[in-house]
Amino acid sequence: MTSDRPLGEFGSIERYLAPLAGKGGTALDLRDDAAVFSPPEGRDLVFTKDAMVAGVHFLPDDPPALVARKLARVNLSDLAAMGAEPLGYLLALALPRGAEESWMAGFAEGLAAEQETFGWQLWGGDTVATPGPMTATLTAIGAVPRGHALRRGGARPGDLIYVSGAIGDAALGLLVRKGELPGIAEIHARHLEERFLLPTPRVALGPRLLGIATAAMDVSDGLAADLAHIARASHVAAVLDLDALPLSDAARAAVKGDPRLHDRIFGGDDYELLFTASPARRDDLARISRDLNLPLTCIGEIETGSGVRARDGRPLPGGYRHF
Amino acid sequence: MTSDRPLGEFGSIERYLAPLAGKGGTALDLRDDAAVFSPPEGRDLVFTKDAMVAGVHFLPDDPPALVARKLARVNLSDLAAMGAEPLGYLLALALPRGAEESWMAGFAEGLAAEQETFGWQLWGGDTVATPGPMTATLTAIGAVPRGHALRRGGARPGDLIYVSGAIGDAALGLLVRKGELPGIAEIHARHLEERFLLPTPRVALGPRLLGIATAAMDVSDGLAADLAHIARASHVAAVLDLDALPLSDAARAAVKGDPRLHDRIFGGDDYELLFTASPARRDDLARISRDLNLPLTCIGEIETGSGVRARDGRPLPGGYRHF
Repeated sequence: MTSDRPLGEFGSIERYLAPLAGKGGTALDLRDDAAVFSPPEGRDLVFTKDAMVAGVHFLPDDPPALVARKLARVNLSDLAAMGAEPLGYLLALALPRGAEESWMAGFAEGLAAEQETFGWQLWGGDTVATPGPMTATLTAIGAVPRGHALRRGGARPGDLIYVSGAIGDAALGLLVRKGELPGIAEIHARHLEERFLLPTPRVALGPRLLGIATAAMDVSDGLAADLAHIARASHVAAVLDLDALPLSDAARAAVKGDPRLHDRIFGGDDYELLFTASPARRDDLARISRDLNLPLTCIGEIETGSGVRARDGRPLPGGYRHF
Repeated sequence: MTSDRPLGEFGSIERYLAPLAGKGGTALDLRDDAAVFSPPEGRDLVFTKDAMVAGVHFLPDDPPALVARKLARVNLSDLAAMGAEPLGYLLALALPRGAEESWMAGFAEGLAAEQETFGWQLWGGDTVATPGPMTATLTAIGAVPRGHALRRGGARPGDLIYVSGAIGDAALGLLVRKGELPGIAEIHARHLEERFLLPTPRVALGPRLLGIATAAMDVSDGLAADLAHIARASHVAAVLDLDALPLSDAARAAVKGDPRLHDRIFGGDDYELLFTASPARRDDLARISRDLNLPLTCIGEIETGSGVRARDGRPLPGGYRHF
């Protein structure tokens, strides 16, 4: 536990993390060897873990609150993809010796914001020094009705393929950030960049898909690559309607300005939910979409066979490695 | 999940980790977004997370199997300190770009050995590249009968203080490793070094202490420092019988050769269990000690008051920071 290993100059870290653990909860105020959690009856627990390294997954001078929020959200997206509601998380931080206390304060602020938004709590973790770059790993724990977690392997021929929200924004946002989309309107540039910097995990959608989606995952590698995961796990083929892909106004403007950018739509890091469902569920999905004010777009169909292809035979753009 | 983010040259990592996840178990073969676990009825789950950085917590040229085993054992020790039985773990690895495949193979071999010994499994994780040193974090999950996890805060005046095994070996072993204990017999040097390199988490002992120990933790910061944690959490004083401290033959020989080394006994990293129990439990503890073939030594007593002191008034050596 954090409290066991104060780090000399980082001794004050506990001061920033302890308030995130709540009082007398699972984390035992971060003052015991481990956290203790009483699982709710009739529920399965879902576990996922992601790591982020400065200079690889974020820039060393990115605002620390943003780094924390992205780390939380990437994990929350994995929980949502299984249909799970978030419960708590454990955090390990490897901090460079020169790290500023203000960095830690900002990082904790970002975590606090996500706790408020998504209703989960810090359960524990560890903080160590590193001679290398800041490295943060988060283990997320969620709950789902027993036996009902959404999996990748349940898609059946005849199912429709859906994706939430809009895709391609994050990959285009990275170009904005690198200054490689100079011609785009400022309002569009900001939208794309924000979607790259801070994804929106579909935490409310995931649990609503229980009993409806036959297979689900979140879009991180890219739409085609991730659909290939579902096709492989389900032993089916996925056929995409490329013209149906939901693009934001900003992405549409970018692609209109430079059609070569269309491939970027498949670049990944969308953290939208990609799922399949029987056509009989169309009305259920329309209702969920209205309830959550979130587009759920049918982008294709599952067939017998294997792999992913476009219905019109166009080659699928890269950004994936799994064919 | 690991399978989502093959790392170019590290694409083969999955090959090493997948066998650790078993088939069709909690980890869903590492091929879904997250692991799904059905908690056993009537049990609480215990969570802990530790990080290790090359050059800080181990040497870059330490055998990778040993690094993996130590990482596993440090976490298993935290579970044991709560009285929990190990169930599974999630692993995040940040690997330097130049990392050799043989390193990964050795690391996985070490994890496999600990799975065999301690009966737990890999549930998931993440593998990323880093421009910095190898960084490994492990989140351990265990189970304990509901409401019965061992805590630090339950010690009462009149309780006896116990420690398992022997203390001081690891701190002396570090000196051996640094070549700072030249006069010691080879057999003793090897014993101390092994205890430093590979602690033995008291996985069988922890659950046996449920309903017997009033407070418990594992000795990582050092005996006096960790006892101070218990004293503070329990709002009591801890009085140590320094002559009763259980030392291995090797530690005894080292201290006899150089009495200044006595302070090293308090240096920490022992991963023994430190616990308190009513004197009425003496026979229970003697039986457990026989069953496990593990010494459980009474080293002092809990009194009213606060802090930690030696019964004979000798000053307590350093290696701790919490007074």
